[in-house]
Amino acid sequence: MINADLLKQLIEFRRERDWEQFHNPKDIAISLSIEAAELLEWFQWRDKTEIQQMLETDKREALEDEIADVAVYLSYLCHDLNIDLEQAIKRKMEKNAAKYPVEKVKGRADKYNEYS
Amino acid sequence: MINADLLKQLIEFRRERDWEQFHNPKDIAISLSIEAAELLEWFQWRDKTEIQQMLETDKREALEDEIADVAVYLSYLCHDLNIDLEQAIKRKMEKNAAKYPVEKVKGRADKYNEYS
Amino acid sequence: MINADLLKQLIEFRRERDWEQFHNPKDIAISLSIEAAELLEWFQWRDKTEIQQMLETDKREALEDEIADVAVYLSYLCHDLNIDLEQAIKRKMEKNAAKYPVEKVKGRADKYNEYS
Amino acid sequence: MINADLLKQLIEFRRERDWEQFHNPKDIAISLSIEAAELLEWFQWRDKTEIQQMLETDKREALEDEIADVAVYLSYLCHDLNIDLEQAIKRKMEKNAAKYPVEKVKGRADKYNEYS
Repeated sequence: MINADLLKQLIEFRRERDWEQFHNPKDIAISLSIEAAELLEWFQWRDKTEIQQMLETDKREALEDEIADVAVYLSYLCHDLNIDLEQAIKRKMEKNAAKYPVEKVKGRADKYNEYS
Repeated sequence: MINADLLKQLIEFRRERDWEQFHNPKDIAISLSIEAAELLEWFQWRDKTEIQQMLETDKREALEDEIADVAVYLSYLCHDLNIDLEQAIKRKMEKNAAKYPVEKVKGRADKYNEYS
Repeated sequence: MINADLLKQLIEFRRERDWEQFHNPKDIAISLSIEAAELLEWFQWRDKTEIQQMLETDKREALEDEIADVAVYLSYLCHDLNIDLEQAIKRKMEKNAAKYPVEKVKGRADKYNEYS
Repeated sequence: MINADLLKQLIEFRRERDWEQFHNPKDIAISLSIEAAELLEWFQWRDKTEIQQMLETDKREALEDEIADVAVYLSYLCHDLNIDLEQAIKRKMEKNAAKYPVEKVKGRADKYNEYS
Protein backbone atom coordinates (compact mmCIF):
# COMPACT_ATOMS: atom_id res chain seq x y z
CA MET A 1 0.00 0.00 0.00
CA ILE A 2 2.42 2.69 1.20
CA ASN A 3 5.91 2.48 -0.31
CA ALA A 4 8.41 0.02 1.16
CA ASP A 5 10.72 2.66 2.65
CA LEU A 6 7.90 4.36 4.52
CA LEU A 7 6.65 1.01 5.82
CA LYS A 8 10.20 0.26 7.02
CA GLN A 9 10.13 3.56 8.92
CA LEU A 10 6.87 2.62 10.64
CA ILE A 11 8.18 -0.81 11.64
CA GLU A 12 11.45 0.70 12.91
CA PHE A 13 9.55 3.42 14.85
CA ARG A 14 7.77 0.88 17.05
CA ARG A 15 10.79 -1.45 17.27
CA GLU A 16 13.29 1.13 18.49
CA ARG A 17 10.83 2.18 21.21
CA ASP A 18 10.24 -1.47 22.17
CA TRP A 19 6.54 -1.02 21.48
CA GLU A 20 5.81 -4.07 19.28
CA GLN A 21 4.97 -5.92 22.49
CA PHE A 22 1.66 -4.01 22.55
CA HIS A 23 0.75 -4.82 18.96
CA ASN A 24 -1.43 -7.84 18.36
CA PRO A 25 -4.06 -7.94 15.59
CA LYS A 26 -7.11 -7.43 17.81
CA ASP A 27 -5.62 -4.43 19.62
CA ILE A 28 -4.47 -2.91 16.32
CA ALA A 29 -8.03 -3.33 14.99
CA ILE A 30 -9.34 -1.57 18.12
CA SER A 31 -6.86 1.27 17.56
CA LEU A 32 -7.81 1.61 13.89
CA SER A 33 -11.44 1.96 14.97
CA ILE A 34 -10.54 4.60 17.55
CA GLU A 35 -8.56 6.60 14.99
CA ALA A 36 -11.43 6.31 12.46
CA ALA A 37 -13.67 7.91 15.11
CA GLU A 38 -11.13 10.73 15.64
CA LEU A 39 -11.12 11.28 11.86
CA LEU A 40 -14.94 11.47 11.92
CA GLU A 41 -14.76 13.88 14.87
CA TRP A 42 -13.13 16.51 12.63
CA PHE A 43 -16.47 16.62 10.75
CA GLN A 44 -18.69 16.48 13.87
CA TRP A 45 -21.62 18.95 13.78
CA ARG A 46 -20.24 20.60 10.61
CA ASP A 47 -22.26 21.15 7.42
CA LYS A 48 -20.88 21.15 3.85
CA THR A 49 -20.14 24.89 3.79
CA GLU A 50 -18.19 24.87 7.05
CA ILE A 51 -16.27 21.78 5.96
CA GLN A 52 -15.31 23.45 2.67
CA GLN A 53 -14.04 26.49 4.62
CA MET A 54 -12.16 24.42 7.18
CA LEU A 55 -10.37 22.56 4.37
CA GLU A 56 -8.93 25.90 3.21
CA THR A 57 -7.46 26.80 6.61
CA ASP A 58 -4.77 25.32 8.86
CA LYS A 59 -7.51 23.11 10.37
CA ARG A 60 -6.84 20.87 7.36
CA GLU A 61 -3.62 19.61 8.93
CA ALA A 62 -5.48 18.08 11.88
CA LEU A 63 -7.63 16.10 9.42
CA GLU A 64 -4.56 14.93 7.51
CA ASP A 65 -3.04 13.81 10.84
CA GLU A 66 -6.08 11.65 11.62
CA ILE A 67 -6.09 10.18 8.12
CA ALA A 68 -2.39 9.40 8.61
CA ASP A 69 -3.14 7.68 11.94
CA VAL A 70 -5.74 5.39 10.31
CA ALA A 71 -3.31 4.59 7.47
CA VAL A 72 -0.50 3.80 9.93
CA TYR A 73 -2.58 1.23 11.85
CA LEU A 74 -3.84 -0.25 8.56
CA SER A 75 -0.18 -0.60 7.49
CA TYR A 76 0.85 -2.30 10.76
CA LEU A 77 -2.12 -4.70 10.47
CA CYS A 78 -1.36 -5.66 6.86
CA HIS A 79 2.36 -6.05 7.67
CA ASP A 80 1.79 -8.16 10.77
CA LEU A 81 -0.83 -10.39 9.11
CA ASN A 82 1.13 -10.60 5.84
CA ILE A 83 -1.77 -9.16 3.83
CA ASP A 84 -1.17 -7.86 0.31
CA LEU A 85 -3.50 -4.89 0.51
CA GLU A 86 -3.67 -4.21 -3.22
CA GLN A 87 -4.60 -7.85 -3.87
CA ALA A 88 -7.24 -7.65 -1.14
CA ILE A 89 -8.69 -4.47 -2.67
CA LYS A 90 -8.70 -5.94 -6.20
CA ARG A 91 -10.51 -9.06 -5.01
CA LYS A 92 -13.07 -7.07 -3.03
CA MET A 93 -13.76 -4.75 -5.98
CA GLU A 94 -14.30 -7.83 -8.20
CA LYS A 95 -16.86 -9.11 -5.70
CA ASN A 96 -18.50 -5.66 -5.64
CA ALA A 97 -18.64 -5.44 -9.45
CA ALA A 98 -20.21 -8.90 -9.73
CA LYS A 99 -22.77 -8.13 -7.06
CA TYR A 100 -23.59 -4.67 -8.45
CA PRO A 101 -23.28 -4.76 -12.24
CA VAL A 102 -23.42 -1.29 -13.87
CA GLU A 103 -26.55 -1.94 -15.94
CA LYS A 104 -28.52 -3.02 -12.85
CA VAL A 105 -27.50 -0.32 -10.40
CA LYS A 106 -26.58 2.81 -12.37
CA GLY A 107 -28.11 5.90 -10.82
CA ARG A 108 -30.09 3.89 -8.27
CA ALA A 109 -29.84 5.25 -4.76
CA ASP A 110 -31.56 2.22 -3.26
CA LYS A 111 -28.95 -0.04 -4.79
CA TYR A 112 -26.21 2.29 -3.49
CA ASN A 113 -27.54 2.06 0.04
CA GLU A 114 -27.71 -1.71 -0.21
CA TYR A 115 -24.16 -1.75 -1.64
CA SER A 116 -22.43 0.41 0.93
CA MET B 1 -0.49 5.06 -1.43
CA ILE B 2 -2.22 2.37 -3.49
CA ASN B 3 -0.83 2.32 -7.01
CA ALA B 4 -2.24 4.74 -9.59
CA ASP B 5 -3.92 2.07 -11.72
CA LEU B 6 -5.81 0.62 -8.78
CA LEU B 7 -6.92 4.09 -7.67
CA LYS B 8 -8.13 4.73 -11.24
CA GLN B 9 -10.20 1.51 -10.97
CA LEU B 10 -11.80 2.71 -7.72
CA ILE B 11 -12.66 6.12 -9.20
CA GLU B 12 -14.06 4.51 -12.37
CA PHE B 13 -16.10 2.00 -10.32
CA ARG B 14 -18.13 4.73 -8.63
CA ARG B 15 -18.30 6.92 -11.76
CA GLU B 16 -19.70 4.26 -14.11
CA ARG B 17 -22.41 3.49 -11.57
CA ASP B 18 -23.18 7.19 -11.14
CA TRP B 19 -22.43 6.90 -7.43
CA GLU B 20 -20.08 9.86 -6.88
CA GLN B 21 -23.18 11.93 -6.11
CA PHE B 22 -23.27 10.20 -2.70
CA HIS B 23 -19.64 10.87 -1.89
CA ASN B 24 -18.85 13.97 0.14
CA PRO B 25 -16.03 14.04 2.72
CA LYS B 26 -18.22 13.81 5.84
CA ASP B 27 -20.21 10.84 4.52
CA ILE B 28 -17.01 9.11 3.40
CA ALA B 29 -15.59 9.63 6.92
CA ILE B 30 -18.79 8.09 8.35
CA SER B 31 -18.41 5.11 6.01
CA LEU B 32 -14.75 4.64 6.92
CA SER B 33 -15.77 4.52 10.58
CA ILE B 34 -18.51 1.97 9.84
CA GLU B 35 -16.07 -0.25 7.94
CA ALA B 36 -13.48 0.04 10.75
CA ALA B 37 -16.18 -1.30 13.11
CA GLU B 38 -16.89 -4.21 10.72
CA LEU B 39 -13.14 -4.96 10.68
CA LEU B 40 -13.14 -4.95 14.51
CA GLU B 41 -16.21 -7.22 14.49
CA TRP B 42 -14.12 -10.02 12.97
CA PHE B 43 -12.20 -10.07 16.28
CA GLN B 44 -15.28 -9.67 18.54
CA TRP B 45 -15.26 -11.99 21.60
CA ARG B 46 -12.19 -13.86 20.25
CA ASP B 47 -9.00 -14.47 22.23
CA LYS B 48 -5.46 -14.71 20.81
CA THR B 49 -5.60 -18.48 20.26
CA GLU B 50 -8.90 -18.40 18.37
CA ILE B 51 -7.67 -15.47 16.28
CA GLN B 52 -4.50 -17.34 15.34
CA GLN B 53 -6.59 -20.34 14.27
CA MET B 54 -9.10 -18.24 12.33
CA LEU B 55 -6.24 -16.62 10.39
CA GLU B 56 -5.27 -20.07 9.11
CA THR B 57 -8.72 -20.87 7.73
CA ASP B 58 -10.95 -19.42 5.01
CA LYS B 59 -12.30 -17.02 7.65
CA ARG B 60 -9.19 -14.96 6.82
CA GLU B 61 -10.76 -13.79 3.57
CA ALA B 62 -13.60 -12.01 5.40
CA LEU B 63 -11.01 -10.06 7.41
CA GLU B 64 -9.09 -9.14 4.26
CA ASP B 65 -12.39 -7.93 2.72
CA GLU B 66 -13.01 -5.58 5.67
CA ILE B 67 -9.43 -4.30 5.55
CA ALA B 68 -9.95 -3.67 1.82
CA ASP B 69 -13.18 -1.74 2.53
CA VAL B 70 -11.38 0.57 4.98
CA ALA B 71 -8.55 1.12 2.48
CA VAL B 72 -11.03 1.89 -0.33
CA TYR B 73 -12.78 4.65 1.65
CA LEU B 74 -9.40 6.01 2.77
CA SER B 75 -8.38 6.13 -0.91
CA TYR B 76 -11.58 7.93 -1.98
CA LEU B 77 -11.10 10.47 0.86
CA CYS B 78 -7.47 11.21 -0.01
CA HIS B 79 -8.32 11.44 -3.72
CA ASP B 80 -11.32 13.74 -3.22
CA LEU B 81 -9.49 16.01 -0.74
CA ASN B 82 -6.26 15.95 -2.75
CA ILE B 83 -4.27 14.56 0.18
CA ASP B 84 -0.83 13.07 -0.39
CA LEU B 85 -1.12 10.21 2.09
CA GLU B 86 2.57 9.36 2.23
CA GLN B 87 3.42 13.00 2.95
CA ALA B 88 0.73 13.08 5.65
CA ILE B 89 2.10 9.90 7.24
CA LYS B 90 5.71 11.21 7.11
CA ARG B 91 4.71 14.45 8.79
CA LYS B 92 2.67 12.69 11.48
CA MET B 93 5.52 10.26 12.25
CA GLU B 94 7.89 13.25 12.60
CA LYS B 95 5.51 14.78 15.14
CA ASN B 96 5.30 11.41 16.93
CA ALA B 97 9.09 11.01 17.02
CA ALA B 98 9.57 14.52 18.43
CA LYS B 99 6.93 14.01 21.07
CA TYR B 100 8.15 10.53 22.03
CA PRO B 101 11.95 10.41 21.65
CA VAL B 102 13.39 6.88 21.94
CA GLU B 103 15.53 7.58 25.00
CA LYS B 104 12.56 8.90 26.97
CA VAL B 105 9.96 6.29 26.13
CA LYS B 106 11.74 3.02 25.33
CA GLY B 107 10.04 0.07 27.00
CA ARG B 108 7.66 2.30 28.93
CA ALA B 109 4.07 1.11 28.81
CA ASP B 110 2.76 4.31 30.41
CA LYS B 111 4.36 6.36 27.66
CA TYR B 112 2.88 3.96 25.07
CA ASN B 113 -0.60 4.44 26.43
CA GLU B 114 -0.13 8.20 26.43
CA TYR B 115 1.21 7.99 22.86
CA SER B 116 -1.48 5.87 21.29
CA MET C 1 -30.90 3.44 33.82
CA ILE C 2 -33.42 0.92 32.53
CA ASN C 3 -35.85 -0.39 35.12
CA ALA C 4 -34.79 -3.23 37.43
CA ASP C 5 -37.10 -5.86 35.91
CA LEU C 6 -35.85 -5.24 32.40
CA LEU C 7 -32.23 -5.39 33.60
CA LYS C 8 -33.03 -8.71 35.30
CA GLN C 9 -34.34 -9.99 31.96
CA LEU C 10 -31.10 -9.01 30.21
CA ILE C 11 -28.95 -10.70 32.87
CA GLU C 12 -31.12 -13.83 32.75
CA PHE C 13 -31.02 -13.90 28.94
CA ARG C 14 -27.24 -14.32 28.84
CA ARG C 15 -27.15 -16.57 31.91
CA GLU C 16 -29.67 -19.16 30.65
CA ARG C 17 -27.73 -19.43 27.38
CA ASP C 18 -24.45 -19.77 29.29
CA TRP C 19 -23.11 -16.72 27.48
CA GLU C 20 -21.68 -14.67 30.40
CA GLN C 21 -18.39 -16.46 29.79
CA PHE C 22 -17.91 -14.19 26.75
CA HIS C 23 -18.63 -10.97 28.63
CA ASN C 24 -15.67 -9.09 30.04
CA PRO C 25 -15.54 -5.28 30.15
CA LYS C 26 -13.17 -4.79 27.22
CA ASP C 27 -15.13 -7.09 24.91
CA ILE C 28 -18.42 -5.44 25.95
CA ALA C 29 -16.87 -2.03 25.16
CA ILE C 30 -15.83 -3.38 21.73
CA SER C 31 -19.40 -4.62 21.15
CA LEU C 32 -20.92 -1.31 22.21
CA SER C 33 -18.68 0.43 19.66
CA ILE C 34 -19.71 -2.02 16.93
CA GLU C 35 -23.41 -1.48 17.68
CA ALA C 36 -22.92 2.32 17.71
CA ALA C 37 -21.50 1.98 14.17
CA GLU C 38 -24.54 -0.10 13.12
CA LEU C 39 -26.79 2.64 14.54
CA LEU C 40 -24.83 5.22 12.50
CA GLU C 41 -25.13 3.01 9.42
CA TRP C 42 -28.91 3.56 9.39
CA PHE C 43 -28.12 7.23 8.58
CA GLN C 44 -25.30 6.49 6.10
CA TRP C 45 -25.47 8.62 2.91
CA ARG C 46 -28.90 10.00 3.89
CA ASP C 47 -29.76 13.71 4.05
CA LYS C 48 -32.24 15.35 6.45
CA THR C 49 -35.23 14.97 4.12
CA GLU C 50 -34.68 11.25 3.51
CA ILE C 51 -34.12 10.68 7.23
CA GLN C 52 -37.39 12.42 8.06
CA GLN C 53 -39.20 10.22 5.54
CA MET C 54 -37.52 7.01 6.73
CA LEU C 55 -38.60 7.78 10.31
CA GLU C 56 -42.23 7.70 9.15
CA THR C 57 -41.97 4.24 7.58
CA ASP C 58 -41.29 0.73 8.88
CA LYS C 59 -37.56 1.48 8.41
CA ARG C 60 -37.86 3.16 11.83
CA GLU C 61 -37.95 -0.23 13.55
CA ALA C 62 -34.45 -1.12 12.33
CA LEU C 63 -33.15 2.10 13.90
CA GLU C 64 -34.93 1.36 17.18
CA ASP C 65 -33.35 -2.12 17.14
CA GLU C 66 -29.84 -0.64 16.84
CA ILE C 67 -30.56 1.88 19.61
CA ALA C 68 -31.75 -1.03 21.75
CA ASP C 69 -28.54 -2.97 21.02
CA VAL C 70 -26.38 -0.04 22.20
CA ALA C 71 -28.52 0.34 25.34
CA VAL C 72 -28.29 -3.40 26.10
CA TYR C 73 -24.47 -3.41 26.02
CA LEU C 74 -24.40 -0.20 28.08
CA SER C 75 -26.64 -1.94 30.63
CA TYR C 76 -24.42 -5.04 30.79
CA LEU C 77 -21.33 -2.84 31.22
CA CYS C 78 -22.84 -0.76 34.04
CA HIS C 79 -24.18 -3.90 35.74
CA ASP C 80 -20.89 -5.82 35.51
CA LEU C 81 -18.78 -2.84 36.66
CA ASN C 82 -21.27 -1.81 39.32
CA ILE C 83 -21.71 1.65 37.84
CA ASP C 84 -24.63 3.84 38.89
CA LEU C 85 -25.33 5.35 35.48
CA GLU C 86 -27.54 8.19 36.70
CA GLN C 87 -24.87 9.23 39.22
CA ALA C 88 -22.22 9.07 36.47
CA ILE C 89 -24.38 11.22 34.16
CA LYS C 90 -25.08 13.75 36.93
CA ARG C 91 -21.39 14.10 37.74
CA LYS C 92 -20.41 14.44 34.07
CA MET C 93 -23.10 17.10 33.49
CA GLU C 94 -21.79 19.05 36.50
CA LYS C 95 -18.29 18.98 34.98
CA ASN C 96 -19.76 20.10 31.63
CA ALA C 97 -21.70 22.96 33.26
CA ALA C 98 -18.63 24.19 35.14
CA LYS C 99 -16.46 24.04 32.01
CA TYR C 100 -19.10 25.67 29.78
CA PRO C 101 -21.07 28.21 31.83
CA VAL C 102 -24.16 29.55 30.04
CA GLU C 103 -23.05 33.17 29.97
CA LYS C 104 -19.75 32.31 28.31
CA VAL C 105 -20.97 29.86 25.66
CA LYS C 106 -24.55 30.71 24.78
CA GLY C 107 -25.11 30.66 21.05
CA ARG C 108 -21.40 30.14 20.32
CA ALA C 109 -20.75 27.44 17.76
CA ASP C 110 -16.99 27.48 18.39
CA LYS C 111 -17.61 26.77 22.05
CA TYR C 112 -20.03 23.97 21.08
CA ASN C 113 -17.44 22.31 18.88
CA GLU C 114 -14.88 22.57 21.66
CA TYR C 115 -17.47 21.17 24.12
CA SER C 116 -18.64 18.14 22.16
CA MET D 1 -34.74 4.99 30.46
CA ILE D 2 -32.99 7.51 32.70
CA ASN D 3 -35.40 9.11 35.15
CA ALA D 4 -37.57 11.99 33.95
CA ASP D 5 -35.88 14.65 36.11
CA LEU D 6 -32.42 13.79 34.83
CA LEU D 7 -33.67 13.81 31.23
CA LYS D 8 -35.21 17.25 31.89
CA GLN D 9 -31.77 18.43 33.07
CA LEU D 10 -30.13 17.18 29.86
CA ILE D 11 -32.74 18.90 27.67
CA GLU D 12 -32.43 22.13 29.68
CA PHE D 13 -28.61 22.00 29.52
CA ARG D 14 -28.56 22.22 25.72
CA ARG D 15 -31.53 24.63 25.57
CA GLU D 16 -30.09 27.24 27.93
CA ARG D 17 -26.86 27.27 25.94
CA ASP D 18 -28.79 27.55 22.67
CA TRP D 19 -27.16 24.35 21.46
CA GLU D 20 -30.19 22.39 20.19
CA GLN D 21 -29.56 23.99 16.80
CA PHE D 22 -26.65 21.54 16.37
CA HIS D 23 -28.68 18.46 17.29
CA ASN D 24 -30.22 16.51 14.45
CA PRO D 25 -30.53 12.71 14.53
CA LYS D 26 -27.66 11.95 12.13
CA ASP D 27 -25.19 14.21 13.95
CA ILE D 28 -26.27 12.79 17.32
CA ALA D 29 -25.67 9.28 15.94
CA ILE D 30 -22.19 10.40 14.79
CA SER D 31 -21.50 11.79 18.28
CA LEU D 32 -22.69 8.61 19.98
CA SER D 33 -20.26 6.63 17.80
CA ILE D 34 -17.41 9.00 18.66
CA GLU D 35 -18.12 8.66 22.39
CA ALA D 36 -18.34 4.86 22.09
CA ALA D 37 -14.83 4.96 20.60
CA GLU D 38 -13.61 7.13 23.52
CA LEU D 39 -15.13 4.57 25.91
CA LEU D 40 -13.25 1.79 24.06
CA GLU D 41 -10.06 3.88 24.22
CA TRP D 42 -9.99 3.50 28.02
CA PHE D 43 -9.38 -0.23 27.40
CA GLN D 44 -6.91 0.25 24.50
CA TRP D 45 -3.82 -2.03 24.75
CA ARG D 46 -4.83 -3.20 28.25
CA ASP D 47 -5.14 -6.83 29.28
CA LYS D 48 -7.58 -8.23 31.88
CA THR D 49 -5.19 -7.82 34.81
CA GLU D 50 -4.39 -4.18 34.06
CA ILE D 51 -8.10 -3.44 33.54
CA GLN D 52 -8.97 -4.97 36.90
CA GLN D 53 -6.30 -2.81 38.56
CA MET D 54 -7.37 0.35 36.75
CA LEU D 55 -10.96 -0.17 37.90
CA GLU D 56 -9.75 0.03 41.50
CA THR D 57 -8.00 3.39 41.06
CA ASP D 58 -9.15 6.92 40.22
CA LYS D 59 -8.78 5.96 36.54
CA ARG D 60 -12.26 4.48 36.97
CA GLU D 61 -13.82 7.94 36.92
CA ALA D 62 -12.62 8.60 33.35
CA LEU D 63 -14.36 5.40 32.23
CA GLU D 64 -17.56 6.39 34.03
CA ASP D 65 -17.38 9.78 32.28
CA GLU D 66 -17.22 8.12 28.85
CA ILE D 67 -20.08 5.77 29.72
CA ALA D 68 -22.06 8.84 30.80
CA ASP D 69 -21.30 10.58 27.48
CA VAL D 70 -22.65 7.61 25.49
CA ALA D 71 -25.77 7.51 27.70
CA VAL D 72 -26.35 11.26 27.28
CA TYR D 73 -26.35 11.07 23.47
CA LEU D 74 -28.55 7.97 23.59
CA SER D 75 -30.98 9.95 25.78
CA TYR D 76 -31.03 12.94 23.41
CA LEU D 77 -31.63 10.62 20.44
CA CYS D 78 -34.52 8.75 22.10
CA HIS D 79 -36.02 12.04 23.30
CA ASP D 80 -35.77 13.77 19.92
CA LEU D 81 -37.09 10.76 17.96
CA ASN D 82 -39.77 9.99 20.55
CA ILE D 83 -38.45 6.47 21.13
CA ASP D 84 -39.55 4.50 24.17
CA LEU D 85 -36.21 2.84 24.90
CA GLU D 86 -37.53 0.19 27.26
CA GLN D 87 -40.13 -0.86 24.68
CA ALA D 88 -37.43 -0.96 22.01
CA ILE D 89 -35.21 -3.13 24.23
CA LYS D 90 -38.08 -5.48 25.10
CA ARG D 91 -38.97 -5.95 21.44
CA LYS D 92 -35.34 -6.54 20.43
CA MET D 93 -34.83 -9.09 23.24
CA GLU D 94 -37.98 -10.94 22.06
CA LYS D 95 -36.51 -11.12 18.55
CA ASN D 96 -33.20 -12.33 20.02
CA ALA D 97 -34.93 -15.01 22.12
CA ALA D 98 -36.93 -16.28 19.14
CA LYS D 99 -33.84 -16.40 16.93
CA TYR D 100 -31.64 -18.01 19.61
CA PRO D 101 -33.79 -20.35 21.74
CA VAL D 102 -32.01 -21.62 24.89
CA GLU D 103 -32.13 -25.30 23.96
CA LYS D 104 -30.49 -24.67 20.59
CA VAL D 105 -27.70 -22.31 21.64
CA LYS D 106 -26.80 -23.03 25.25
CA GLY D 107 -23.05 -23.15 25.74
CA ARG D 108 -22.35 -22.87 22.01
CA ALA D 109 -19.68 -20.33 21.19
CA ASP D 110 -20.37 -20.52 17.46
CA LYS D 111 -23.99 -19.60 18.07
CA TYR D 112 -22.82 -16.74 20.34
CA ASN D 113 -20.61 -15.34 17.64
CA GLU D 114 -23.43 -15.58 15.13
CA TYR D 115 -25.76 -13.91 17.66
CA SER D 116 -23.66 -10.95 18.63
